[in-house]
Amino acid sequence: MVAFDQIPAVDPTVEVPDPHADDPIFDLHVAGKMEVASTVALNGPDELSMAYTPGVAKVCEAIAADPGVYYDYTWTANTVAVITDGTAVLGLGDIGPKAAMPVMEGKAILFKQFGGIDGIPICLDTTDTDEIVETVIRLAPSFGGINLEDISAPRCFEIEERLKQALDIPVFHDDQHGTAVVTLAALENAMKLTGKYHDTVRIVVSGAGAAGVAVTRILLAAGYRDIAVVDRAGVLHRDRDDMNPSKRSLAAETADTTGRWGTLAAVMDGADVYIGLSGGSVPEDVVASMAEEPIIFGLANPTPEVHPDLAHKYARVVATGRSDFPNQINNVLAFPGIFRGAFDARATAITEGMKLAAAQALAAIVGDELREDYIIPSPFDPRVGPTVASAVAEAARRDGVARR
Amino acid sequence: MVAFDQIPAVDPTVEVPDPHADDPIFDLHVAGKMEVASTVALNGPDELSMAYTPGVAKVCEAIAADPGVYYDYTWTANTVAVITDGTAVLGLGDIGPKAAMPVMEGKAILFKQFGGIDGIPICLDTTDTDEIVETVIRLAPSFGGINLEDISAPRCFEIEERLKQALDIPVFHDDQHGTAVVTLAALENAMKLTGKYHDTVRIVVSGAGAAGVAVTRILLAAGYRDIAVVDRAGVLHRDRDDMNPSKRSLAAETADTTGRWGTLAAVMDGADVYIGLSGGSVPEDVVASMAEEPIIFGLANPTPEVHPDLAHKYARVVATGRSDFPNQINNVLAFPGIFRGAFDARATAITEGMKLAAAQALAAIVGDELREDYIIPSPFDPRVGPTVASAVAEAARRDGVARR
Repeated sequence: MVAFDQIPAVDPTVEVPDPHADDPIFDLHVAGKMEVASTVALNGPDELSMAYTPGVAKVCEAIAADPGVYYDYTWTANTVAVITDGTAVLGLGDIGPKAAMPVMEGKAILFKQFGGIDGIPICLDTTDTDEIVETVIRLAPSFGGINLEDISAPRCFEIEERLKQALDIPVFHDDQHGTAVVTLAALENAMKLTGKYHDTVRIVVSGAGAAGVAVTRILLAAGYRDIAVVDRAGVLHRDRDDMNPSKRSLAAETADTTGRWGTLAAVMDGADVYIGLSGGSVPEDVVASMAEEPIIFGLANPTPEVHPDLAHKYARVVATGRSDFPNQINNVLAFPGIFRGAFDARATAITEGMKLAAAQALAAIVGDELREDYIIPSPFDPRVGPTVASAVAEAARRDGVARR
Repeated sequence: MVAFDQIPAVDPTVEVPDPHADDPIFDLHVAGKMEVASTVALNGPDELSMAYTPGVAKVCEAIAADPGVYYDYTWTANTVAVITDGTAVLGLGDIGPKAAMPVMEGKAILFKQFGGIDGIPICLDTTDTDEIVETVIRLAPSFGGINLEDISAPRCFEIEERLKQALDIPVFHDDQHGTAVVTLAALENAMKLTGKYHDTVRIVVSGAGAAGVAVTRILLAAGYRDIAVVDRAGVLHRDRDDMNPSKRSLAAETADTTGRWGTLAAVMDGADVYIGLSGGSVPEDVVASMAEEPIIFGLANPTPEVHPDLAHKYARVVATGRSDFPNQINNVLAFPGIFRGAFDARATAITEGMKLAAAQALAAIVGDELREDYIIPSPFDPRVGPTVASAVAEAARRDGVARR
């Protein structure tokens, strides 16, 4: 037996076999997916004394004297912290801050690729609502915006709300609002194909987590009136005693006003639109019970709640969250352009008006090419980021939250 | 008079005159000095589905199952958070987190340029010791190391100590240890020129803040025995009742053992080495009272405590913190290589042995070219970073803190 103090030091020349070898996804992730780069030259003492001491002191003094120039002379105006606590990562659930990092890095490089924004992944070692809020407030001077990511409901609602109150920079929970903006854009275009009306079309939203709540709220803001939100226990409505405050408040704005209560199957009967944000699977007879020419969005990833092959037997328009089917509802269509627009306007917040403007701009890109299998542009359509950004910046100025 | 609700929105087309126009330092700082970049291609859906959903889930699951692979598949192993609360920025003092950002960005790009390390500037909106400690602990999973910067003494000592206890990644307060390492390296080479002995040479350290404390401690660790540390009230010694705990403990290891107490002028009389880390100015008669062939390091920036022109009238070896005189004591000689070495070894801490190894490696680069005006290499000497890194990684393995 080897005593602890006799354990030999690690020999760095010994190769440990990698269980993930020859997997292209792991190969791509070796050493991560991003880096920091200098945007100024540092080739000699003169450059060093301008970018660092003693020259930099002048810039510090200018900011101390007039904080209004902070965004002019630092990288912060173009930075967004991509912040998670690792509690609701993709479909994997509460896997902790470290295991969440590959997703946050991915998000950061999408911010760069599609919005020209510098994203900084921050994975927090706490899941306590108060601690997350106070930590982000203390970090906030370092960034131009806060993108909350993969934080479980219902904590995510309170965290976002408190941060929006406390901070004068954009705060955006992408799992809520990114999903909501892209879903609304897709639905608006799908509605044009079916010719149904906003105020009478019957919508079922399956899922009352972060995405379900935000999608429902943006649909209400966009003029939809007949929405039933369904969780595992059925439609949210006032007579249920098992609902958290966010579900209770959502019920008041949806089924409490329409009276359509009951199971998923009950409210799907005759519904015009199904939006799946919950996972699980909708039986074919339930799909078959929908109204004529329904719209079916099965957005769970990687397994849509209604597989497109099944959905197409009944539906006029079908969308999923997957890139290997037409009509991919992908948040990357929204968040880079939304933050780009907010930053371009130096917005102090991301308003409901900015989100609606983003959805309208996104829907409008499709334009005359609209058809059943093209209700939303591709993430690689180069018009997406700039078009969304421009609409969002304009909305920021209209809503009075722009600083320029 | 215009009522508040009649104030027109900012017109973004109107150019506001820039009071800093035509200043090359402000020009260089427009939009900051750094950015984030992707290290992987994202040109189409296949790449997107590997770097982000759904492919990335595999990597998340691998980390959740074995946190030991965290550093293999994320960028964190190469990242250091450059963290300040803005309380002791350069010679400017407590200018707040935002005004500190240009220095933190500068530090971050020096990390990249001289160490290949990704530095992330974090400026905290709190100066409370407990809050800083808990905030950094919550952030820590996001980074491979923590570099504390420009946090005022004596809080900086407690903050560093508590973070070192709490975290299993390198924590390093550069104002203390970077300065200490480079000063020791320079002094070791200066000592070779004068032929004086470590255990008898009389040293005066002026300043008992972050740098003064750390320089004194590394000198003690390197075998120097006769050190008087001076603050505004004179030499630190046990009969003073105005000292904080860090000064009290430093007194016990310095003047309390030598009995050399009194004013700066008193202890400079006959001293062999003066190390200025305090600002202010030493009168010529005090400089003249030093021993034969003294060593004078006036490290305050931009104004050395003893101007080189004056110092050279009496001293054998003179060093400053400035790049426009020979022998520049510049932290950039130390921190990039120290973190590079720590990261190469995946060290869990930065030990005293690693700091001493860094100083020795730095001194050794000068080698046979040693002369009065070349006791320390230039920051642009390409040997510096790799030589320091290699010595530090080796020391980490020797000290048992290396994970590879």
